[in-house]
Amino acid sequence: MAMNVTQKLIKDHLLSGEMIPGKEIGIKIDQTLTQDATGTMVMLELEAMGLDYAKTEASAQYVDHNLIQVDSKNPDDHLFLQSAARRFGLHYSKPGNGVSHPVHMQRLARPGKTLLGSDSHTCANGCMGMLAMGAGGIDVAMAIAGEPFYVKMPKVWGIELIGEMPEWVSAKDIIFELLRRYDVKGGVGRVLEYYGPGLKNLSAMDRHVIANMGAELGATGTVFPSDKEIKRFLKEQDREGDWTELQADKGATYDLSDKINLSELEPLIAKPSSPGNVVSVREVAGEPIYQSYVGSSANPGFRDFAIASEIVKGKQIADGISFDINPTSRQMLTDLVNEGHIANLLQAGGRLHQAGCNGCIGMGQAPASGRNSLRTTPRNFPGRSGTREDSVFLCSPETAAASALTGTITDPRTLDMDYPKIKDPKKPTIDLNLLENPLPPEEARKVELYKGPNIASIPEMDELPDQLEVPILLKMGDNISTDEILAGGARVLPYRSNLPEISKFTFEIIDETYYERGIDSRDQGGHAIIGGSNYGQGSSREHAALAPRYLGLRVALVKDFARIHWQNLVNFGILPITFVNEGDYDNIVQGDVLVFADLRTKIQQGNEFSIRIKGKDQEINVRHTLSERQIEMVLKGGLINWVKDRSKNHG
Amino acid sequence: MAMNVTQKLIKDHLLSGEMIPGKEIGIKIDQTLTQDATGTMVMLELEAMGLDYAKTEASAQYVDHNLIQVDSKNPDDHLFLQSAARRFGLHYSKPGNGVSHPVHMQRLARPGKTLLGSDSHTCANGCMGMLAMGAGGIDVAMAIAGEPFYVKMPKVWGIELIGEMPEWVSAKDIIFELLRRYDVKGGVGRVLEYYGPGLKNLSAMDRHVIANMGAELGATGTVFPSDKEIKRFLKEQDREGDWTELQADKGATYDLSDKINLSELEPLIAKPSSPGNVVSVREVAGEPIYQSYVGSSANPGFRDFAIASEIVKGKQIADGISFDINPTSRQMLTDLVNEGHIANLLQAGGRLHQAGCNGCIGMGQAPASGRNSLRTTPRNFPGRSGTREDSVFLCSPETAAASALTGTITDPRTLDMDYPKIKDPKKPTIDLNLLENPLPPEEARKVELYKGPNIASIPEMDELPDQLEVPILLKMGDNISTDEILAGGARVLPYRSNLPEISKFTFEIIDETYYERGIDSRDQGGHAIIGGSNYGQGSSREHAALAPRYLGLRVALVKDFARIHWQNLVNFGILPITFVNEGDYDNIVQGDVLVFADLRTKIQQGNEFSIRIKGKDQEINVRHTLSERQIEMVLKGGLINWVKDRSKNHG
Repeated sequence: MAMNVTQKLIKDHLLSGEMIPGKEIGIKIDQTLTQDATGTMVMLELEAMGLDYAKTEASAQYVDHNLIQVDSKNPDDHLFLQSAARRFGLHYSKPGNGVSHPVHMQRLARPGKTLLGSDSHTCANGCMGMLAMGAGGIDVAMAIAGEPFYVKMPKVWGIELIGEMPEWVSAKDIIFELLRRYDVKGGVGRVLEYYGPGLKNLSAMDRHVIANMGAELGATGTVFPSDKEIKRFLKEQDREGDWTELQADKGATYDLSDKINLSELEPLIAKPSSPGNVVSVREVAGEPIYQSYVGSSANPGFRDFAIASEIVKGKQIADGISFDINPTSRQMLTDLVNEGHIANLLQAGGRLHQAGCNGCIGMGQAPASGRNSLRTTPRNFPGRSGTREDSVFLCSPETAAASALTGTITDPRTLDMDYPKIKDPKKPTIDLNLLENPLPPEEARKVELYKGPNIASIPEMDELPDQLEVPILLKMGDNISTDEILAGGARVLPYRSNLPEISKFTFEIIDETYYERGIDSRDQGGHAIIGGSNYGQGSSREHAALAPRYLGLRVALVKDFARIHWQNLVNFGILPITFVNEGDYDNIVQGDVLVFADLRTKIQQGNEFSIRIKGKDQEINVRHTLSERQIEMVLKGGLINWVKDRSKNHG
Repeated sequence: MAMNVTQKLIKDHLLSGEMIPGKEIGIKIDQTLTQDATGTMVMLELEAMGLDYAKTEASAQYVDHNLIQVDSKNPDDHLFLQSAARRFGLHYSKPGNGVSHPVHMQRLARPGKTLLGSDSHTCANGCMGMLAMGAGGIDVAMAIAGEPFYVKMPKVWGIELIGEMPEWVSAKDIIFELLRRYDVKGGVGRVLEYYGPGLKNLSAMDRHVIANMGAELGATGTVFPSDKEIKRFLKEQDREGDWTELQADKGATYDLSDKINLSELEPLIAKPSSPGNVVSVREVAGEPIYQSYVGSSANPGFRDFAIASEIVKGKQIADGISFDINPTSRQMLTDLVNEGHIANLLQAGGRLHQAGCNGCIGMGQAPASGRNSLRTTPRNFPGRSGTREDSVFLCSPETAAASALTGTITDPRTLDMDYPKIKDPKKPTIDLNLLENPLPPEEARKVELYKGPNIASIPEMDELPDQLEVPILLKMGDNISTDEILAGGARVLPYRSNLPEISKFTFEIIDETYYERGIDSRDQGGHAIIGGSNYGQGSSREHAALAPRYLGLRVALVKDFARIHWQNLVNFGILPITFVNEGDYDNIVQGDVLVFADLRTKIQQGNEFSIRIKGKDQEINVRHTLSERQIEMVLKGGLINWVKDRSKNHG
């Protein structure tokens, strides 16, 4: 049977299940990626599991999120991560070396392989002919330990690219076009697979941009073929030997299809406060801005900075604008320096920051109150910038640079200049020191974990009770993101290895009283929350499940879940259920008490069961979509208990 | 009479008083400098005074301290400062443009002028043949409003430089030599004036290094002559017309004298946790380090970065070391980029940060717990790095770069290489956009101040009562710095325009209960504190007086005061007194209640009076050194009340 690239990748790594969309499959994971915000917890989990040495082909621990060191917490975590990488046989990339996704692409990504990462933008490496997926930290810990990754077999969504991008349009506008068409839920349960004649003008880094923001469609992954361009890219990185071709078979089909004529695109922009809120730049042109921001894993390439440099070269940005330049990695910054682009950006008034995720995840560069920020980053969820009622627009580097010059949102086509042609560096830097290599096992075993004073063990968690009476502490609407459940940013992230501390920020943006009420509920059997559609979209951070669980959350009842967060809930023993009749959402109010009788029996007997609202003559039918493995996990109170039990039974 | 440079500068600007060391003089101020940490308060004070337009020749507002924007507070303050600069006729330098002192030197400093700045390192511009002094924010506000600056006529301390620095020794080692000889109080009440044949090999920027850290000696200022080197420097900045020669007269004498033979110097280092804790690098060589840090106003020059670049060029820094590069300004960063030095530093493993004060004032780059940090910054007071029990060494760029390579503190002379020769940039960048020019008065008057939600007015303060019974809430030892009174850093500085919020951090490092006890004391007549020698050394931040005053501090009784903090206490209506017999310090314990009878009368009648300790049969003789003007100010409850009364009487 003729297969597409996604099917080939899955078939090559299938350990259990059938390749029928919607059915759970177990996949062998070849590579993993962890970053510092989620990685400390992964390393604590590896320690708890008693892992001797990573079982993957390549695993890398990056430090790119928490680069602001206002006290010893973040640097202590960096040292912990370095010691853990050395202990468990991982690569290590230290602070200042760069953003995980592009560095991984340059150093470790290999066509035909699977990559699992505790970062929702791990999908970016799908640009390399890989099946690359974001997951919760504990899933990645399991993968490092050699366990399969379980996921529902996705539908493969073939996106045919035809035509050629007009001047002033770039890769970012392609993914915006899909977000314009399908919004932030459009890719749920799907892998996007790009093909067609339009590919030939998209560089590996352009494809990275597109694959990266597949996460914003809610997709399981994004896959590009491994073609000559990938060969060229690997050769440039002195890794030609890692290339293998991977193309769809002739006559391959897709579960779903769409087509983009690149020639018809124009500069697009996502308005506040959702990446799916896409319009043409023309429509919002003239809006005054406070900030223009270039960088992040959504526009990480040399050309993304070089095009901005060529646009502002020899000019001055508008008075008072903060033109923030966030380099991708030390290696790429070196190239940008050597080719004169950093000098252009500085002389035009740019503010050059260290290489890393920075403001994209709320670590600095927050905009002033009530001012518009224009960014090439992938997300603009409310408050993600660090400013409470922020107003963040997402755009291409062309639009960001043009707007920096005028001080208002500007369609770059209206600049009085020719579209700059960007040449690749003649001799690109290859900085082998971006990644510390893993120690061999015998040396690794001698390494002791370094734990600073802010790193706390994960508390024990109890099993799911059979009888449950839980009040609803929050009723929320649609598209609640993990940023709203538990914010990232400089105030919160330093506590990511300290559950009692980080839990104080849970749902803070939605309801500041939640923490206290959660703590109170904990000794009385816990509580539930109600959500709308696409609950838990956005970042993969597992703290968004772990922290509410710590505060007594037992049940999340919503219209439907975002995939990664759903998985995180299961992993930490929170029962995720949905309404059989969505209309029932309207019949529940915050403060209602949900009554679950014979719960353990019911969720084992079938997918649907009914629950009661206490004091109301009302039953509600709910549904779970847990596999047998997952039912076992939820009953035991989460994956950690499940693994502990298993090693007890084996030992 | 033959005069030295300092005497000429003072004589040219003398408005009141006699040039007799120790006597108060009033000086005309030509230029002012404010930075963002202290500047917001200065601008609020200008507003409260009802200032129309700056009366100085040149005043500049820089944003270099609070560059970390984790929420809207800092960016809101930046916009407030920009609006205030436009409203009051000041230059404005936006975030990312650079550190105030070197930028001021390049753009505005003029030989023969006086400069007052609300930053203790304002003295750095003494390198330009100026009388440059740090002061509290309110003193600077008064200077902008055209008022004289009052200070005690300093003793002029002639430092003759002879010989020539050996290889691997640089300007930083010269000021370390003075700190080694005289420690952190050695310059109190003095202006250091450098002269002699050793000057000829010291560039303007080398002199900046030396003048900058005159602050660490507690000096009132540091003065260099304006010679051909200053002419060369100004010409390089396209400002040759601003040069005038300023040299000591033949036969000029000094109140005190010392001599340094530069040929005899070797690389020096200040151990934790005082800049006066100086030994030779040899003595501590081999200590492992976590961090090597280059930058700050104490080593701001092109050569300071270039020498580090040449030392690490083509090599790799030691495993795991954080090699933090903190550029001085956008202009200088451009030069370092164009000359290949940034590429060298990056390729060796450097972590490049934005231009600004950064980790020098605890805004990022804090070291990990219990690890050694090596820095080219001017200060290593406890906790200043952001890490609570930190271990910070101060050194030259040569020592920092050598140590980054080895991973341990390293005497650069032991490197197996020739001492690099640094060439100036062939065509130095002149970035006129570093400073926004003042608006003309008619346009300035149209500007409205922009106040973000975190900017709060200064509360009203009451007069000094005639009868005072105040408990001693803290008894402290010697050399208490303003960092210990009220820390800088990322946690604290965002509240610098919000007195009720920032006061919560007062004395936190010394005693976490002070804030609560202070608040409690406030309604019961306030409280006193006891200090040892050199009380209030370090940063000029006036919040270190304003915040304790807000919490009820009425009297500071110490062995002796650091000059700027003493002035700040007076300005905010806190009575600063010293022991007539230092032995009495030992007879007082925390919790004792001091009784001041007929206080208003007594401080007007003489400099010495006695106070009682309640419940003890004990009198203590104390002394104040207030001028008549200052007595009036303290009686009224501070300078703001004094100015208000004056305008009431004039109006």
